This record gives sequence, C-alpha cells and structure tokens, in this order.
Amino acid sequence: MRFVLVAGTTHTATIEGISAAGADPELMLHTPAADAEIVEYGQPVYAPTTPVSPTGCPTPAVITRAVHELVAPDALVVDAGLARRTAAPTVTVGERPGADVRDPEPVPGATDVFEAARELGRGLPDEELVVGESIPGGTTTAFGVLTALGEPHGVSSSLPENPLTLKREVVATALDESGLDAGDAAGEPIRAIQSMGDPVLAAVSGLTIGAIETGGEVTLAGGTQMIAAGALVRHFDVHAPLGLATTSFVADDETADVQTAARALDLDLTVTDPGFDRSDHVAMERYRRGEAKEGVGMGGALMLAARDGIPMDEVRTRIERCYDPLVEDDGP
Amino acid sequence: MRFVLVAGTTHTATIEGISAAGADPELMLHTPAADAEIVEYGQPVYAPTTPVSPTGCPTPAVITRAVHELVAPDALVVDAGLARRTAAPTVTVGERPGADVRDPEPVPGATDVFEAARELGRGLPDEELVVGESIPGGTTTAFGVLTALGEPHGVSSSLPENPLTLKREVVATALDESGLDAGDAAGEPIRAIQSMGDPVLAAVSGLTIGAIETGGEVTLAGGTQMIAAGALVRHFDVHAPLGLATTSFVADDETADVQTAARALDLDLTVTDPGFDRSDHVAMERYRRGEAKEGVGMGGALMLAARDGIPMDEVRTRIERCYDPLVEDDGP
Repeated sequence: MRFVLVAGTTHTATIEGISAAGADPELMLHTPAADAEIVEYGQPVYAPTTPVSPTGCPTPAVITRAVHELVAPDALVVDAGLARRTAAPTVTVGERPGADVRDPEPVPGATDVFEAARELGRGLPDEELVVGESIPGGTTTAFGVLTALGEPHGVSSSLPENPLTLKREVVATALDESGLDAGDAAGEPIRAIQSMGDPVLAAVSGLTIGAIETGGEVTLAGGTQMIAAGALVRHFDVHAPLGLATTSFVADDETADVQTAARALDLDLTVTDPGFDRSDHVAMERYRRGEAKEGVGMGGALMLAARDGIPMDEVRTRIERCYDPLVEDDGP
Repeated sequence: MRFVLVAGTTHTATIEGISAAGADPELMLHTPAADAEIVEYGQPVYAPTTPVSPTGCPTPAVITRAVHELVAPDALVVDAGLARRTAAPTVTVGERPGADVRDPEPVPGATDVFEAARELGRGLPDEELVVGESIPGGTTTAFGVLTALGEPHGVSSSLPENPLTLKREVVATALDESGLDAGDAAGEPIRAIQSMGDPVLAAVSGLTIGAIETGGEVTLAGGTQMIAAGALVRHFDVHAPLGLATTSFVADDETADVQTAARALDLDLTVTDPGFDRSDHVAMERYRRGEAKEGVGMGGALMLAARDGIPMDEVRTRIERCYDPLVEDDGP
C-alpha cells in the first residue's frame, strides 16, 4: 500500500470567501506545498507557516501526519502544479497552477497532466494506492467538473457555512466563459477538467486509472473533491471497483450528501470518525464545529489507522503531539 | 535520522573505460535515476533496466534497498542534475547534468546547486543525516576536485582494476582546459567544483554544511567521492565533526587508502563489512572480486543496519530477496 498525496493549486482559491485552506489568499498559494512538508517532515520547511483557516483551524495535514507517524505507510507526494516550492520530495506530473475556473480554459494542459499521472500510476509497484489531495479552492472546481459532467452531486466546504450561493455563481460564470451548459461534457472527462476543473483532478484521475489498468486497487481519500475524481474515472468509462474514504465530518455535511453520490458512482464508501468530540484540544475542536472537515487524505489516513487496529484515542494523542510544536514554532 | 541520496550525472561517465556504473555509456545516463527508483520502490519504474556493470555486477542500490527494508529510515532523494526522469520523488537542487570534466567549466551552476542544497540542509528537521550519492564517473570528478584542492588522496573505482592511468590523463587534461595547476583551487571549493567537479559534489557539500550550520550531525556515506566531499567541506573552512561511512571493499582498496585520507581530513571513519565472503549469491560474489565496492550510500546503509543490531546474515538474505525479482523482471 502506498499513500499518495496529489498537491496543486488553482487560482480559484483567491476568490474572496471561497476557501478556508489558508489564512488569506496569498498564504493559500503556499498551503499545498506546506501540507506536503508537514506530511513528510512534521513541520513546514520552506513554507512560511503552518496553514490555518482564517479562524485558526489547522490544516488536516496535521492529522494525516499523525497517522503516518503511527502507521508509517510508504508515501509519495505528486506535484500537479504547485505555485510555491516545497522541500517535500515530489514526482512532478504538472508544472502549471490551474487558472481561475472562470477562465475559458483554466487547465489547458489537462491531457498532459492526466497522461503523466496515468503513466506513474501504471509504473508504481504497489497493489493498493490511497490517494489524497491538497488544493485550496478544490471544492469549487470539483463542483464545476460535476456540473459539466452532468452529475447532480453537491460539494462540501472547508468553511463551517458552505458558501453555496457563491460557488453556484462562480460555476455559472465558469460554464458561460467556457461556452458550456451543465452536462455538456458528459463522457468527455478531459474537456470537463480543461474547462471547469483543476490540475489535481487531472492527476488524481490519471493516477487512479493507471493503477487500475495494471491491476491495482485504489481508494480515493477525501470528500467531495474525490467524488468529482470518481465521477471523472467513471466518465473515462472505467468501471472497476473504486473506494472512497472520507471523514465523518464530510459524511455528516448535508450540503454534500456523499452517501448518495458514492452510491450513484459505485464508489465503495468508508467513513471514519476520529472521535474529536472526546477532545477539547484546539487542533480538534474546530473540526467539531464543521471547519476543514477533510483534505490531505485525512479520511484515508484515518481508515488506515482503523484498519491497523490503532485506537482513535491514540490517534488523537498523536495529533496533539504533532500540533503543539507547530504552533510554538509558527511564523516565518 | 534521515538517509539522503544525492543523485546526478556527469558526462565524464561516457569516457570509455572510466566507470562500471552501467552496462554501456547510454545506460549509464539512466543509472542514478534507476538507483533512486530501486531505493524507493525496490525496482526500476521509468528506468529501462536495473543498472549492472559491463560484467553484470548489480548496482549497490540493491544493497541499500535491502537495508532500507530492514531499517526503514526516513529517506530523501535529492536531484542534483539527473539526465533522465525518475519516478522516485525528489527535491531538485540542480537542473543540469555536469559536463565532461575536461570541459573548461563542467559545473557552471556550482554556486546555485551548493546554495540550494545548503538551504535544504538548513531546513531539514533531522538531527542526523546520512548522505549517499549516485553519479557514474564520480570517482574521476572526485579525483579532479581533490587535485584542484591540492589534496594528495587517491580515489577508488567501480571497476575491479582501477583505471588510474586513464583517470590521471583525464584529470591532467581537465586541469589544463580549466587553466589550473594542482592545488590552485585550495581554499576555493566552489572554484574546484566548477572547474573540475560534478553537481553531486556541489549538492553533497552544500547539504552537509547547511545541516551542520543548524546543529545537525552528518555522515557522508560512500568511498572516495565522499572523501572529496569531505575535503570540500574542510576547504569551505567548516571544521565541525563529520563522519564517513564506507564499505570494507573501499577500505581494502590499496589504490585509495581511505584511512589515511579520512585521518588527514578529520573524518570519523566507519567501515562495515557485509560478510559477502559467506555468500555465493550472484548479487554479492562480484563485490568480493572488487567490482562496484560502494555507491548509493551502501556503506552508510550497512552502518545503519549494524547500529540497529541487524545481523549481516539477515542483510545478505534480504539482498537476495531484493535482487532476484529484479533479474526476473529485467528489461524494458
């Protein structure tokens, strides 16, 4: 088994109020690079700070790191278009950040990213991949892709109050600019990514299909962005078994209805509850209030911990130990 | 502790008869990328084949991989100028392969590579680094650097008969082309690398100095290339404790005299004997005949195994298990 984190950026994240994956739009461009460093080293290296939401909720990278310390999976970071450098070792499948989804063609290199990731997926020797993502603004591009594909599923949010009206407006403008109506890209997944998506969705779907083509099993680790990735895989006409591992925070989000979407797309859903209601620690209490919810493969990491028989109280203790030095050392 | 493999290339390797780190000069350009894949995945992914010497001696990457399976250190591959792509995740500190050492300036970007690696070394959170290398032709550039620095130490070879006459000729031509006499770059390590070295030496010395500057301990894992790296560190006027971990095959090589060189440079020498004389396995018997000897951090990996109390017969058994599928699966 190998845990793969696909990290990239979309300028969609800089739309005011669209994402909580960083304290401000400038810092948000650092978030995926910082997330990769936290998973790899337990702390930022080149990134100026540990990503937090505007209200101070720490990145789910801290939770994934904590599980990695306990489970020690083989791990791989895939760079699908980072906007800032990272000290985490990466395999690059895309060089360019995605443009704002409202651009006519936010991911012009979708085919290249998809094919590079597919080749990597074919080459990896692992029988099982668990694939997470880090891309601020990614639920909006996921919503764009689902809409272009004609898939009726909603998306979740890293904000406690999902800015659905804003997302719908952004996606409506994006469709317009791309000359598409909802459903126009059904059966044309590359077109959906190119016109309405982000480079991480290109990489995740390519990696998944490459691994499946060589007999591998894949679990998409995430929330509604991974619903979009799963929908893309199905629209590539790949109908092999495919897992989706997410957190109870996403599963409980009524704006998303991940259960219905997973059923419709034939994704084998695993929901893991890390029991944060049994902790008052600052790294966990904001999740209880509906912030962050998912990201950086958090749901997949929690699934791996559960599968290895690691009690969730041990996971929570480890999260505290991972989080505390990050706050002390915070700042550039 | 983190095991760092610095991988790169120099066109010096394509000089007929200079290196055994690949079956032919074209395949030699793939060797560092393949070595990184073998350490990371246990097999080549994008590389066309497992690197072997012209007589069939497998790359020391197999031994390092075997130890990694037993010890499971945190690991990092640093790309200092690979000539071929690799599926191993990397942090890039140099984009360009080194030119032939006989060029007037084989490493024009020496300062940039050194500084990028130094910054990485400063950023890594580990208290201890064990730094290995993979660069075919590297003992010749090491000899060039030692000569330019005025250090009187000889170098070893991946060939059973060290082609010393050829190396001396190449280095003499290289000095000439660079307008240098032996010793002219004493106290000017960047000039020595730029005129007579390779990008891996720039990266290894930068990484080492960066780690030392932030209180880290470093062990250079290798043979006479790491003697050259150690000499560079000393000529940078850095006199902190520094380790050198190598194999008994290098230590027994009279053309190198690594003990004397280590003493002269104040490097704390660890020699580990993997006991290959107790095995008839093809992956090990050629080492007994003096092929390969070192590389891909093999001496450092063996040191880590010994430190962890892993018996060498267990290491040898694991080497067999790592090697056998590589031969079955060989070929593109």
